[in-house]
Amino acid sequence: MTFRIGPDDMEAIALGGAFLGTGGGGDPYIGKLMARSMMAAEGAEVEVIPGADVPDDALCVPVCMMGAPTVMIEKLPNGDEALAALRALEAYLGRKADYLICIEAGGLNSTIPFAVAAAAGLPLIDGDGMGRAFPELQMVSLTLHDIKATPMVIADDKGNSGVLNAISNQWTERLARAATVEMGGAALVALYPMTGAQMKAGLLHGTLSLIHEIGRTILAERAANRHPAAALIRRCNGMDLCTARVVDIERRTTGGFARGKARLRGLDADQGRDFTLSFQNEFLCLEDGDGTPLALTPDLICALDADGGLPVTTESLRFGLGIRLIGLPADPQWRSAGGLALAGPGYFGYDHAFRPLEELVSGRTPEEKPLNMEVTT
Amino acid sequence: MTFRIGPDDMEAIALGGAFLGTGGGGDPYIGKLMARSMMAAEGAEVEVIPGADVPDDALCVPVCMMGAPTVMIEKLPNGDEALAALRALEAYLGRKADYLICIEAGGLNSTIPFAVAAAAGLPLIDGDGMGRAFPELQMVSLTLHDIKATPMVIADDKGNSGVLNAISNQWTERLARAATVEMGGAALVALYPMTGAQMKAGLLHGTLSLIHEIGRTILAERAANRHPAAALIRRCNGMDLCTARVVDIERRTTGGFARGKARLRGLDADQGRDFTLSFQNEFLCLEDGDGTPLALTPDLICALDADGGLPVTTESLRFGLGIRLIGLPADPQWRSAGGLALAGPGYFGYDHAFRPLEELVSGRTPEEKPLNMEVTT
Repeated sequence: MTFRIGPDDMEAIALGGAFLGTGGGGDPYIGKLMARSMMAAEGAEVEVIPGADVPDDALCVPVCMMGAPTVMIEKLPNGDEALAALRALEAYLGRKADYLICIEAGGLNSTIPFAVAAAAGLPLIDGDGMGRAFPELQMVSLTLHDIKATPMVIADDKGNSGVLNAISNQWTERLARAATVEMGGAALVALYPMTGAQMKAGLLHGTLSLIHEIGRTILAERAANRHPAAALIRRCNGMDLCTARVVDIERRTTGGFARGKARLRGLDADQGRDFTLSFQNEFLCLEDGDGTPLALTPDLICALDADGGLPVTTESLRFGLGIRLIGLPADPQWRSAGGLALAGPGYFGYDHAFRPLEELVSGRTPEEKPLNMEVTT
Repeated sequence: MTFRIGPDDMEAIALGGAFLGTGGGGDPYIGKLMARSMMAAEGAEVEVIPGADVPDDALCVPVCMMGAPTVMIEKLPNGDEALAALRALEAYLGRKADYLICIEAGGLNSTIPFAVAAAAGLPLIDGDGMGRAFPELQMVSLTLHDIKATPMVIADDKGNSGVLNAISNQWTERLARAATVEMGGAALVALYPMTGAQMKAGLLHGTLSLIHEIGRTILAERAANRHPAAALIRRCNGMDLCTARVVDIERRTTGGFARGKARLRGLDADQGRDFTLSFQNEFLCLEDGDGTPLALTPDLICALDADGGLPVTTESLRFGLGIRLIGLPADPQWRSAGGLALAGPGYFGYDHAFRPLEELVSGRTPEEKPLNMEVTT
């Protein structure tokens, strides 16, 4: 179903994107502000169209930010770079884009496409390439469908840009990552230009509707003074993983990524338990105190503030913060052999063989809880 | 004066290029073989045309290899990548090149343009951008004349390529260097696309004639069983710096460069003296035992084998090798304030303020010597 998104919907989009972004994809507050101001300037709503309604020969282009989230919160995109990346790709292809695409869920990467769509006067397609966020650009369902990431444009805030043509999506990642690092750790990209037919086959559909719904659920639950976890678990077929406090965190921004590991100590029903949460831009592996895995990439590890219920990103993780972790099953494509080769635990160097969330965690009924802090809207 | 260069001239071009390349620009033996085989396959001679004869509106494009010479001798270009880089730049510009340019002197970088010119059926312009070799791509007379390095194409042996557009030639260097490192340490590039009018103002003219003449001098002196140093010093208005043996060498290939330092112990007339020779792809600084500079970038420090008289590149420097170092004054543009800012000792982190070779070295009459080894041609 086609729907319209205006500046006032950006808070829900940013929150929903940040939740499905599993810690990555950018800060939702920055994403909301940026998209709201750009959309307000254009005075336009953005139309979100089901993939099935798009003609097979249309040109569909994802636009997003790439780099370390720790950098993105200090080096804010001004919005123009993303549009410049799109325009440079159009110039290279000799053809205007007909539709824009959101490549991944995230507080920034779900909102940037709306800002660019408003500026370019184009509709967005209701879908994305991951159904979550992943740190590397070849980690999209499009790769599983042999859709090439290049020609790809990468642009920075200073006015530098490049057009890449690579022999594989893995090579595109390597070359674009090196450019991102040199550009200061974050850059805007337009990539995976595809036809409508390719998009229908390769995209994960309905992601923007889901993000919007999740965001509205978070806002509604908070307005009703309820922690949103239980409602989100019900909606997304998820599982409560743990509620715990960050007692140690090691973090480094290297190779264009925010990598690290947090030690967690259980709270509430999890009192007395310990956990380790590892991340590379996104939360990728949750283990309990003795190293037994509780949730593994590509399944989603979504974090909410244990008190206020807002999504927590990897770069905002800090000592003393209480978080509630929720596991969601990944799209079946990610659990296939091809999907696991692309984004399974082995690719990231974790010792565990992938096992689905449902096997790793014994189900427990999600606890309904009030918020522990005053809601500010 | 227009002249023609065929496969059999490639040895002289490679040797002359390697001499003026001050240790960088690639191995002359590889350069000779590669260009000879490519030119023979095309069955063509290449026309070398004075810059003054080129129409102002012609499109002139330099092509060369970029990266660490230590990598270039292990990862040989097959020639096709350079032509592919040219073709990709032409496609991006929507216009065919009319003339090719050699961007720097060097055993490989003076011969690659001949190979590409033969394959593309284009003439070469008698000039280059340095009158020597330098390690970074903004270090060309073109930068001093506000000619932009981009749009620039970079291509590797695997089939990856990129088109860069940067806000300055320094930014082009940063982004292209990062890509070069990721591509394996060496890549082929087509850059500084310029009009005939820009070329006339910005290029250093006559370099290919000089390279050819130097190469023929080296070959002729060796054939006459004379060390070529004295003849080259006379021809190039150079100065004997020292004859010495490498007694220690530290070398590392980092950031896409071959960097290092060699300790030398004097031979013959220099017996009892010590020297330090520092390099980053090219020889950049020669000091005597107490750290007094004897020759400083941008002046040229050219190395010949003390016995056989062939040019010695930085990557072929090895313990026990006897070398004869010759200093040549740089083009006056390099000794200007702008030239020194771009490629003077300070840019490379050496403590010495630039002083011309003629002030640093007391002139001595170059010694005529026979070769110490059998000449093999």
